[in-house]
Amino acid sequence: MPKQAPVIAPSILAADFARLGEDTAASLAAGADWVHFDVMDNHYVPNLTIGPMVLQSLRKYGVTAPVDVHLMVKPVDRIVPDFARAGASLISFHPEASEHIDRTLGLIKESGCQAGLVFNPATPLDYLDYVMDKLDLILIMSVNPGFGGQKFTPGALEKLRQARARIDASGRAIRLEVDGGVTAENIGAIAAAGADTFVAGSAIFHAKDYRAEIAAMRKAIG
Amino acid sequence: MPKQAPVIAPSILAADFARLGEDTAASLAAGADWVHFDVMDNHYVPNLTIGPMVLQSLRKYGVTAPVDVHLMVKPVDRIVPDFARAGASLISFHPEASEHIDRTLGLIKESGCQAGLVFNPATPLDYLDYVMDKLDLILIMSVNPGFGGQKFTPGALEKLRQARARIDASGRAIRLEVDGGVTAENIGAIAAAGADTFVAGSAIFHAKDYRAEIAAMRKAIG
Amino acid sequence: MPKQAPVIAPSILAADFARLGEDTAASLAAGADWVHFDVMDNHYVPNLTIGPMVLQSLRKYGVTAPVDVHLMVKPVDRIVPDFARAGASLISFHPEASEHIDRTLGLIKESGCQAGLVFNPATPLDYLDYVMDKLDLILIMSVNPGFGGQKFTPGALEKLRQARARIDASGRAIRLEVDGGVTAENIGAIAAAGADTFVAGSAIFHAKDYRAEIAAMRKAIG
Amino acid sequence: MPKQAPVIAPSILAADFARLGEDTAASLAAGADWVHFDVMDNHYVPNLTIGPMVLQSLRKYGVTAPVDVHLMVKPVDRIVPDFARAGASLISFHPEASEHIDRTLGLIKESGCQAGLVFNPATPLDYLDYVMDKLDLILIMSVNPGFGGQKFTPGALEKLRQARARIDASGRAIRLEVDGGVTAENIGAIAAAGADTFVAGSAIFHAKDYRAEIAAMRKAIG
Amino acid sequence: MPKQAPVIAPSILAADFARLGEDTAASLAAGADWVHFDVMDNHYVPNLTIGPMVLQSLRKYGVTAPVDVHLMVKPVDRIVPDFARAGASLISFHPEASEHIDRTLGLIKESGCQAGLVFNPATPLDYLDYVMDKLDLILIMSVNPGFGGQKFTPGALEKLRQARARIDASGRAIRLEVDGGVTAENIGAIAAAGADTFVAGSAIFHAKDYRAEIAAMRKAIG
Amino acid sequence: MPKQAPVIAPSILAADFARLGEDTAASLAAGADWVHFDVMDNHYVPNLTIGPMVLQSLRKYGVTAPVDVHLMVKPVDRIVPDFARAGASLISFHPEASEHIDRTLGLIKESGCQAGLVFNPATPLDYLDYVMDKLDLILIMSVNPGFGGQKFTPGALEKLRQARARIDASGRAIRLEVDGGVTAENIGAIAAAGADTFVAGSAIFHAKDYRAEIAAMRKAIG
Repeated sequence: MPKQAPVIAPSILAADFARLGEDTAASLAAGADWVHFDVMDNHYVPNLTIGPMVLQSLRKYGVTAPVDVHLMVKPVDRIVPDFARAGASLISFHPEASEHIDRTLGLIKESGCQAGLVFNPATPLDYLDYVMDKLDLILIMSVNPGFGGQKFTPGALEKLRQARARIDASGRAIRLEVDGGVTAENIGAIAAAGADTFVAGSAIFHAKDYRAEIAAMRKAIG
Repeated sequence: MPKQAPVIAPSILAADFARLGEDTAASLAAGADWVHFDVMDNHYVPNLTIGPMVLQSLRKYGVTAPVDVHLMVKPVDRIVPDFARAGASLISFHPEASEHIDRTLGLIKESGCQAGLVFNPATPLDYLDYVMDKLDLILIMSVNPGFGGQKFTPGALEKLRQARARIDASGRAIRLEVDGGVTAENIGAIAAAGADTFVAGSAIFHAKDYRAEIAAMRKAIG
Repeated sequence: MPKQAPVIAPSILAADFARLGEDTAASLAAGADWVHFDVMDNHYVPNLTIGPMVLQSLRKYGVTAPVDVHLMVKPVDRIVPDFARAGASLISFHPEASEHIDRTLGLIKESGCQAGLVFNPATPLDYLDYVMDKLDLILIMSVNPGFGGQKFTPGALEKLRQARARIDASGRAIRLEVDGGVTAENIGAIAAAGADTFVAGSAIFHAKDYRAEIAAMRKAIG
Repeated sequence: MPKQAPVIAPSILAADFARLGEDTAASLAAGADWVHFDVMDNHYVPNLTIGPMVLQSLRKYGVTAPVDVHLMVKPVDRIVPDFARAGASLISFHPEASEHIDRTLGLIKESGCQAGLVFNPATPLDYLDYVMDKLDLILIMSVNPGFGGQKFTPGALEKLRQARARIDASGRAIRLEVDGGVTAENIGAIAAAGADTFVAGSAIFHAKDYRAEIAAMRKAIG
Repeated sequence: MPKQAPVIAPSILAADFARLGEDTAASLAAGADWVHFDVMDNHYVPNLTIGPMVLQSLRKYGVTAPVDVHLMVKPVDRIVPDFARAGASLISFHPEASEHIDRTLGLIKESGCQAGLVFNPATPLDYLDYVMDKLDLILIMSVNPGFGGQKFTPGALEKLRQARARIDASGRAIRLEVDGGVTAENIGAIAAAGADTFVAGSAIFHAKDYRAEIAAMRKAIG
Repeated sequence: MPKQAPVIAPSILAADFARLGEDTAASLAAGADWVHFDVMDNHYVPNLTIGPMVLQSLRKYGVTAPVDVHLMVKPVDRIVPDFARAGASLISFHPEASEHIDRTLGLIKESGCQAGLVFNPATPLDYLDYVMDKLDLILIMSVNPGFGGQKFTPGALEKLRQARARIDASGRAIRLEVDGGVTAENIGAIAAAGADTFVAGSAIFHAKDYRAEIAAMRKAIG
């Protein structure tokens, strides 16, 4: 399995919601590959962000890049078809948030999207034991989702290495994504640990120059 | 108690989320009085819309009009301070969604906002019996919130008359708001039933000319 | 509004589940009008009974009488279409078990069934204030549903009279059903209080002669 | 129905939990009639206080006065027999916290205790419509339970008058209790509104002289 | 530990509920060993099937074979004694559906039944780490329970081999059951992977000749 | 890492709640090292015990020993600051009771307390995989918490050995605590399996001579 090309996915949670189309487009024009779309429901995490109608508006605005929807919601199944209809490319969720993980993965696929599983900092990787054949992406959280102001947890590097080993052993083209505190400074070490897909929020949208920041990230990945 | 001036509050749920600042500002420039902000959490209603970060972006964009936040969430209390900090002027919630209605009203006030109660089409008005002294607004739903494609329920007119009678008996300046299927065609009858605050979503944002539509509504109110 | 013909609806909860087709058919052949189908989910009440697949089997067996499904489940909406597809004629539910009572009534109707609301012994009738135009049946519980071995609560007679007054005032053909401890001995007084639809479980299915028991009930109604 | 003798019930939530037997006994020796026992479960209200084992220790210590257990828990039924076994005399609960209010009242009685319903400041009295024949006590909250530092709500006086009218109309010996911000200063007005049973926490346990405080209350009741 | 004799357990979910006694008896007369009884509560899975009263009717009808109750309910504990009283021989549940797995296993045993744990397709086997000494059965789901129309997942074979290894290492007589898409065609491979107890629903009850189908299964097991 | 000195922590659940200050102080004077404080919320376990106000009273009484709070509550986060303010030294919780385990551990530390994770008898140790650097204590339950009358499970010894191996491999000073059925008879074997912190409830508080019992335990540990 050849290594996949690195992907930089700005989280629009850090964008300007009053000008979301423009800001999202700017990040893509500046070199971003995907749009990372963080959905919180005030139940699985203590915040409420944006839902399918916002995604639909982005698609109507003309955003054609892959949109990677990270569901921080519980339960998961009811809202999956809504996001598929609204234009999601990939939908990922937390295994603790679904009683029927295999079924939720199947539902995402039947809805026409790629499927991913997300691991909180303390969540063991055992949830991967019997679902590798249904996954397109594994997302390792390097902060606790839904809580602000956290830094990249160093322990996430070892977890990325373990997840990479599972992916390599599977022989399948599963992307290994990381989210939380990713910057141009630490992205090199993160890539070295096996990640190939990088979510960055404030690092990009709060930068003066999106293009320079993304370029710095790409350079650090090497 | 002199009757209060009518207020037209476009629901930004019908606006273009890719250009939310611009679209909201346009509705205000076209004569709207308030911004109506519909929050759904995928638990109290089967949809997830927008949260405090979106409101904060609107305030930063320069929206200074009153923002009337309608919480279709359960439970209510945790998210109240978030919306207050993000710039809400008034926060309303459903009595069924809070175990401690009086406490939630108090929390909204302590957070520096005005407070309202929202009544689903089938919800009795008895929830008003002991809270009139804490209310700034009563919102009568003329459709079921969170479910699309519904028309104004004719039965809502009688309910508006009953709510108006309770407000008049209280001698307090409580606004009587209506939400769901309000158009220039029926707004006259709705105002006659006692409403003084009118939410309109698609009727305004899907109109070719926001100003003409709002003007037609004002004219119909008389 | 002419008074409606009385209906006797045996609850198949008291039938023999090993021979449910035969036992149900026997009650209908013995003069019963409807089949009363009690659904418990071990959440709204502490028991779990029978679901849509059992109803479907009864329809395939040849039962063509109206089937009156009483949902003692919470939440309500997800299972409504399942029962409609399985052959329900009327579906009733408890107002406390649905956040959006008007919506649930609408969903039942859109699914092609008649709709009813059920009142626990302590539940106030205020839930009827704004939904009379959507109801086909009001069910007054004269025992607590889901708990065995209870007798008809005398207080239910006054509640039946109040519900009857609301129905008469509405001018609509809404049936007034009663469930819990109904026997040939007390059915006369119950009918006099305004009920026109009578659920009886063990009184019928545990009788030696279904026909004689149903005839005694009809005679007592007068 | 002759008016019942007034009862003063110190809430041991304000007592010293390190010396609970001694402090409780002191309040009784100083003239208190009942022990008021506030149970919070960190779900129905945002606090967790004391459970059946603490009550059992009080009984073993020698407290023989009536113990009036106020359950601020949801759900209610599972814990009722625990409190009955631990020595409760009366158990009251919030109607919003039980799906089957009539059943919970019955369960309390079958467990050998008297039964009461508690009304939050905003809760309508309609929950009383069909249960007066099963009640021994109605508790009107004059603050929101489980939240500290609140004063007696003046609106509670009118609610007490309405509850009193319902009790008098029933012809039954139902006690009318009030809880929240009761002091020697306002207890006279509260009694005049119809209350006959008075919970006081910090007013008694934080007083220098329990006996003087209780005497002042009795004098104010007249 | 000698290998245990294979058991074929028809799931009566595929039987005719109008003639359940007759149909169940026919499957046993045709060579089935056990009755598999699938309980769904519309909460843990999106369907509601049959409860203890149906099992009790089967026992009264004369079914004496072991009845293997698979609880797809959450929570689990309250309903366990109901099924034990109704005549269950073995009760199995999902580890995700009980906070206190060891306690639930103990409760099943105290109720006089054998106890099993059920694994959804994606559930790791780690839940077995500390409970092997309390288990009589491990059920590996080869489809997602509660969702119709699924085929046997090939990945289940590897999971069966891993579960078999754990059983053999324990030296205890724990049955290894499989449920979902089992047919005469694939049962040989399934048995080779280590299963000794086979649930089959439509494969048996929708066959023209129960006896021939069961015989074909036995022959394939070898 | 030198082995840590053994700690004996009497569970005050077995103390006399009417004289809690005195009884707790007596256990400390008799040689106990810590106070073990068992919190149950009637949701995560079927019992309700004592909350932060009781702890605060103990601190005011003069108890200065470390207080080790074991939260048998779900969810966890809201009550953590309450216990920190009330005087907790260490707070432990069950990983199944928090969606965001790493976040809860961080919250406990930010509140100024040490943090622990508790394992039910059937809970796998995988929850330790990525949190060892945030732990001060691992508590292995040798009975099911919240259910009375259970004996020490022999299988807990092997689990203690596995937890000890994880601690030793981490090189960190994490205490290994055990709770449930610990007595002077079995404490030697338990210490040999790796435990260094021992909770004992009735063994101490129901003994005639606390000092003799604690001394016997210390002697058995060797």
